[in-house]
Amino acid sequence: MSFKSLDELRSAGSGLQPGDDSAAAAALARQDTLTKPAGSLGRLEDIAAWLARWQGRAMPRLDKVQVVVFAGSHGVTAQGVSAFPAEVTHQMVANFSAGGAAINQLSRAAGAELSVVPLQVERPTGDFTQQAAMDEADFLAAVSAGYASVDEDADLACFGEMGIGNTTTAAALAAALFGGEAAQWVGRGTGVDDAGLKRKADAIARGLALHAGALDDPLRAAAALGGRELAAIMGATLAARHKNIPVLLDGFVCTAAAAPLQKLDPTGLAHALAGHVSAEAGHRRLLDAMGLPPLLDLGMRLGEGSGAAVAISIVRAALACHSGMASFAEAGVSER
Amino acid sequence: MSFKSLDELRSAGSGLQPGDDSAAAAALARQDTLTKPAGSLGRLEDIAAWLARWQGRAMPRLDKVQVVVFAGSHGVTAQGVSAFPAEVTHQMVANFSAGGAAINQLSRAAGAELSVVPLQVERPTGDFTQQAAMDEADFLAAVSAGYASVDEDADLACFGEMGIGNTTTAAALAAALFGGEAAQWVGRGTGVDDAGLKRKADAIARGLALHAGALDDPLRAAAALGGRELAAIMGATLAARHKNIPVLLDGFVCTAAAAPLQKLDPTGLAHALAGHVSAEAGHRRLLDAMGLPPLLDLGMRLGEGSGAAVAISIVRAALACHSGMASFAEAGVSER
Repeated sequence: MSFKSLDELRSAGSGLQPGDDSAAAAALARQDTLTKPAGSLGRLEDIAAWLARWQGRAMPRLDKVQVVVFAGSHGVTAQGVSAFPAEVTHQMVANFSAGGAAINQLSRAAGAELSVVPLQVERPTGDFTQQAAMDEADFLAAVSAGYASVDEDADLACFGEMGIGNTTTAAALAAALFGGEAAQWVGRGTGVDDAGLKRKADAIARGLALHAGALDDPLRAAAALGGRELAAIMGATLAARHKNIPVLLDGFVCTAAAAPLQKLDPTGLAHALAGHVSAEAGHRRLLDAMGLPPLLDLGMRLGEGSGAAVAISIVRAALACHSGMASFAEAGVSER
Repeated sequence: MSFKSLDELRSAGSGLQPGDDSAAAAALARQDTLTKPAGSLGRLEDIAAWLARWQGRAMPRLDKVQVVVFAGSHGVTAQGVSAFPAEVTHQMVANFSAGGAAINQLSRAAGAELSVVPLQVERPTGDFTQQAAMDEADFLAAVSAGYASVDEDADLACFGEMGIGNTTTAAALAAALFGGEAAQWVGRGTGVDDAGLKRKADAIARGLALHAGALDDPLRAAAALGGRELAAIMGATLAARHKNIPVLLDGFVCTAAAAPLQKLDPTGLAHALAGHVSAEAGHRRLLDAMGLPPLLDLGMRLGEGSGAAVAISIVRAALACHSGMASFAEAGVSER
């Protein structure tokens, strides 16, 4: 789908279907017959039902797991908000292509197919302290690119990002959507010092003041603050919902990127689980605000989809039990 | 190794070697060259260094991951401490053999080799409210069976348990080793109601009183309270230390089973990570007491080694990054 207007996108993200109740109920009923005390697999049981609901089948599958990393460049790097130079975004895209990044290893370990979608990396978005990061056409193009990146036949999807400066963008968007002071949402990103942390908070405060008129609208806020890879993640996450594909969210940037969908429709992220909670300062606050309990808490703060990719194996474990375990009757095991 | 006396076992578990400092340091140094912000893989970086230390190689491997489930029967089930009948232990051993249990699916999903070691399942240990669970010879035989179950060439090991009644045994052992009231250590196990929970705490209090004279000695405490599968897990965990094999601990029962090693030598479990924290009430308290932060917190409470088996994939993710990622220099990525 190629979105032609904010209203078309708003409409596509509203009034979403609630998934397959009967498949989820059948999955939970099956769980109660398996050779284990009821509920003893904890969140693995919930994951099985979640897969069933959003794939629309009581016996879900994970034959094709898709990881897509979106890359974009941020004009706000001019404000000295990152520990790494902006050209690292481009260099890391090359590293993804060469197979040398963390997400390459983690996707392979999880049995997932990785693709990388660079979004005009050579052309940074506007510096949101000075102007809108994107105009409407630029924003809709990025959302549409994300939407188009999701394969119809994926059984599970993870979206990641690479973009020097994008924890500043994500913090600005989180503050715009959920309120609070800029300082409550900023973290050290790739590793800024205290002065860099202050520059991030200052830049965000200036950006929020400049774009105050746009912030009541989650889509206009996302366009004004950026970046393209965040817009693409929103589009991809919406595409997954339309295509019956459950999603594992990655870290702070990815969660902030998807958050407008929850503002458009309170169930807009019901098909998504938080793969992990990042060590980036604002992520736990954001997950709490969005009601998303993370699967993993491993102190990761790399981005690229890395936390979500590690969480794929948790989902695989859940499905392995759901699909492969014997029932009490089949195994001749006495019930309580 | 077949232990002939408590003193021989005590000696084998004391004055343990600290692992390979130089391999661990080399692994951490490598982590700092890889294309990611320093420290951004969080616990995955620590895991890489931990594997290096205990395997004794800067580039560790996970070619062979061993999961061993030990099964035993507990005389204390006569006190009405479990929601399931005692014969379920035997039935579940058959289910393991037939491939129908959770641990079968989770081991396969994690690429691990599963074996099951039944420990005289047809002959329950003594009811510790009435007598010692095991005499010294019985205890040493179980420890030795566990020790012998660990393959020299394993790169990582997980030990699990099956034994109706064994959360009562584990709670008794935890209370004996770490103090506190019985009620602080008991949980619902496979699903007892409030009355069952009270029977568990009562049985433990009576057991601790009966065996008060043995509780200052972690090995005599383990023999007096049982069970054979707990003793075997202690033996297996010690064997792993002697054989340079890192260990992922499973849940409450497994952690309690291994705890005497930490009492014999403060570093006795330095080669072990807590694979997860179980929903069984006493586990978080026990991990805190032992200084073991869990990798996963998924509300699991099944035993069988299931939580540790899920955690194998976290260790695999850590190794995949450690082994496969490009360095900044290799990838031509600018450093900060």
